[in-house]
Amino acid sequence: MSSPSVIHIPVVKVNANRSAREEDSVAIEEPLEIKLEYGPADGRELRNISVTMRTPGHDAELATGFLFTEGIIKNADEIKSAKHSFIACAENKENTMLVTLEQGVIPHLQNTERNFYTTSSCGVCGKGSIDAIRTVSNFAAGSDDGNVIHSLVLNQLPKILRGHQRVFDDTGGLHASALFTPLGELLLLREDVGRHNALDKLIGAAMMYNWLPLQQTVLLLSGRASFELIQKAAMAGISIIAAVGAPSSLAIELANEFNITLIGFLRDERFNIYAGAHRLMVPDEAVLTAPSA
Amino acid sequence: MSSPSVIHIPVVKVNANRSAREEDSVAIEEPLEIKLEYGPADGRELRNISVTMRTPGHDAELATGFLFTEGIIKNADEIKSAKHSFIACAENKENTMLVTLEQGVIPHLQNTERNFYTTSSCGVCGKGSIDAIRTVSNFAAGSDDGNVIHSLVLNQLPKILRGHQRVFDDTGGLHASALFTPLGELLLLREDVGRHNALDKLIGAAMMYNWLPLQQTVLLLSGRASFELIQKAAMAGISIIAAVGAPSSLAIELANEFNITLIGFLRDERFNIYAGAHRLMVPDEAVLTAPSA
Repeated sequence: MSSPSVIHIPVVKVNANRSAREEDSVAIEEPLEIKLEYGPADGRELRNISVTMRTPGHDAELATGFLFTEGIIKNADEIKSAKHSFIACAENKENTMLVTLEQGVIPHLQNTERNFYTTSSCGVCGKGSIDAIRTVSNFAAGSDDGNVIHSLVLNQLPKILRGHQRVFDDTGGLHASALFTPLGELLLLREDVGRHNALDKLIGAAMMYNWLPLQQTVLLLSGRASFELIQKAAMAGISIIAAVGAPSSLAIELANEFNITLIGFLRDERFNIYAGAHRLMVPDEAVLTAPSA
Repeated sequence: MSSPSVIHIPVVKVNANRSAREEDSVAIEEPLEIKLEYGPADGRELRNISVTMRTPGHDAELATGFLFTEGIIKNADEIKSAKHSFIACAENKENTMLVTLEQGVIPHLQNTERNFYTTSSCGVCGKGSIDAIRTVSNFAAGSDDGNVIHSLVLNQLPKILRGHQRVFDDTGGLHASALFTPLGELLLLREDVGRHNALDKLIGAAMMYNWLPLQQTVLLLSGRASFELIQKAAMAGISIIAAVGAPSSLAIELANEFNITLIGFLRDERFNIYAGAHRLMVPDEAVLTAPSA
């Protein structure tokens, strides 16, 4: 039994001249609690890790992806199982995911208590947040990984995404994360009401397929690029990220520090390069290497 | 000294035919830690409440609004002061906000530990989340508060918002929350990289102005309407919420349970009514009261 992602409900649609009762498709949002079981055979421990508001579906990927991108587990080998856990309540659907680690694996739970935004050395600051990620990331940012994408390919990605989203999403309410090859082939697509969940599902799936680090790939985000999304992508070793929306200042700073290529406003066959221009093939190539005006 | 909300950085803008170096405006994203000081004169306690990624500006409103919408404090009278707190670090800008409560005020800290998504009675579920909000909300949902808006007024709100956003936001990266009268007069506008922060800033400001409960107002959200945003609005007694984007299933459920009017996809002089149609004046008024097809 799997929970649906969309429900159909009656609404009143109103325009300037008329009102009409119609049916509308709405993205489902429900809480998911992530619990972790770990420790030696004679002393297993159970810990509540997080509650996130998500769209049901791909819950095991979401839970394991979250544990990985937050630095709590290091790889798929540490996971014994990831299963829905039912508690005695009629209303309580598939909203708890229990991730069980292999015997002897020690999760890095300090990463949940003292999150990436707070470091002991520096109080709370963006720079400190970036330094904290460096200490837990498995995949060093490659300065010359050979990952390159042509602007003509990049410009096609939003169209490909929308083509596939149309199948899943008639709600207008889902964020998407999609993984492409540098030639524009779609590898994976995940959707959720929460943009961070869509990316955790995608990275969780990639981890289960043993694809990490995701070096020769391009990540497309359907919305804006925040610090949190770039942080998660950096944990998975992704070196080219393109967002349909705007990046934030700290997202750009993190991309620069991790040698990640960051594209923003990728729409209508245009885009802006915010970091890592060396991985792009564009018209007037010389502009990329010319000194700033 | 106040931190800026926007920075200007050099980017490469690429379209199908050419690339050019230009300057771009980017929304600043920095962590803000919220600390709470409370207790009797002889035993004051200091507690770290939360870290949120936010756009600097209106930080005191953000901190106090957050404490209120999460049910930790009950009103503005409980607050003695809300100030930036500086820690010894060159990089650590104005990223810590210390909220000091009046002597004797006991904050409801169990609301931070056991959040709205988890209830002891019901494990983790959407229905339980809604019930949890009812127990901490100060303002009972009025079934007949007399708050009404005409569709012609509603259709103008996004235009008014955009007109004012243009002044603040040339980054394309900021979410907005705006408070209007039912006649379409703009009362308050707050922006942030995080949509929940924009709403906390707005409600924090309204609380400081002693406007709560916000009964005869209309809240406009620049993006999608998630459970979390409707929850925060419900805490402030807002009875009409209109979103430019889509609502989620649990947002609609919460609006219905709290007798809140919820409008989605308010754009191009059209909108959908998802809950509380009785607060709207629309063409073909009879459609609202006719039995469902």
